Amino acid sequence: MKVVIGLSGGMDSTTLLGDFLEQGFEVHCCSFLYGSKHSSYEMQAASEIIEFYHKKNSFNLTHCVIDLRQAFSLFKSNLLKTGGKIPEGHYQEDSMKQTVVPGRNLILGSIMAGIAESIGAEFIALGVHAGDHHIYPDCRPQFIESFRETVNLSSEGKVLVTSPYLYLTKANILSKGYSLKVPVPYHLTRTCYKDQDLACGKCGSCRERLEAFETIKKVDPIKYE
Amino acid sequence: MKVVIGLSGGMDSTTLLGDFLEQGFEVHCCSFLYGSKHSSYEMQAASEIIEFYHKKNSFNLTHCVIDLRQAFSLFKSNLLKTGGKIPEGHYQEDSMKQTVVPGRNLILGSIMAGIAESIGAEFIALGVHAGDHHIYPDCRPQFIESFRETVNLSSEGKVLVTSPYLYLTKANILSKGYSLKVPVPYHLTRTCYKDQDLACGKCGSCRERLEAFETIKKVDPIKYE
Repeated sequence: MKVVIGLSGGMDSTTLLGDFLEQGFEVHCCSFLYGSKHSSYEMQAASEIIEFYHKKNSFNLTHCVIDLRQAFSLFKSNLLKTGGKIPEGHYQEDSMKQTVVPGRNLILGSIMAGIAESIGAEFIALGVHAGDHHIYPDCRPQFIESFRETVNLSSEGKVLVTSPYLYLTKANILSKGYSLKVPVPYHLTRTCYKDQDLACGKCGSCRERLEAFETIKKVDPIKYE
Repeated sequence: MKVVIGLSGGMDSTTLLGDFLEQGFEVHCCSFLYGSKHSSYEMQAASEIIEFYHKKNSFNLTHCVIDLRQAFSLFKSNLLKTGGKIPEGHYQEDSMKQTVVPGRNLILGSIMAGIAESIGAEFIALGVHAGDHHIYPDCRPQFIESFRETVNLSSEGKVLVTSPYLYLTKANILSKGYSLKVPVPYHLTRTCYKDQDLACGKCGSCRERLEAFETIKKVDPIKYE
């Protein structure tokens, strides 16, 4: 079985990758450049994660980087280089809505669906989870359900959208990741939204990650400023 | 009111443009480069159509060209430069399915929806019509209905997908275009799928266009080989 997954280099999509590899899938990872402030750090993380698995020589794994920067140049969001500052605070505060990129999951998922149909993959998988629901409309169950139906119609039933972590918290995802036999390289992942080398520990994204590690009583293996 | 429309440079999307201009909309046109064999001819047509309306000085009209060629480089379709020959014959023959580009309308529509939300446009409009239903899954009413709901959820109700020609034939669209007070420059449009300067008159796309002009008893103003 083949699956196309969106690999941002964050901990959710990296867990998803380990999860599908453990299930024996042939995994095709897509990473997207769309003009985010943290894109170079995301891309570095994604490449290192792929290299980590390639070194193990036992996985059927490809990776492509899709450059959508020109397409996103008209988009408005503080997550983008063209937008304002990344807000600090809890990840469910209303100020975090400044980091919504209009239609991002819809666009990235649609491209993944087109690739899946082209290469004969039965599934696309998105790493969205319960912590995203409050702020990001294109991470909510109603959206995912509707998108699944839209892709089903567009592909005449050939491509199924899956989002196995849709109702899990970030802590649940970490627990899942640490329970896999296939190792998940959390030390290589990048979660921070800011345009800086070391993770800030203060943006909504960092806060949610730190909370998740605290919940499962593990030490986050990455460095913070 | 603002609308984002997909302008391919063909007769359907050009009618759509004239139609929205006549209704007094501020129209933002997006043309997409996605590696099709006829892309340079489509882009030339789209630019000339925009120039045609700009010369009239009475319309609120912008145009952007979005380059998705790298994103579509993994896609399989005979419509693309990377694919096989464009089939000749009637536009509803099964061989025409070779020209389906997986998820194309889903991807282009999703980007248009993200742009619409970013610039505060209430609508995106797609020029799909009844002649597309048989061959292209992402032009069928069920798909459009589902996509509308998906965009509604993704944008929290801010963007509405419209496709006013969904149940019209190409002949109906031409009649509509010729009935508008705003002129529709059919002499500048490009319909042929082939990678050649003059339209072939033999591919499904040309055949459907010629049939439509014949039905409404008008002479197609473009040249054929």
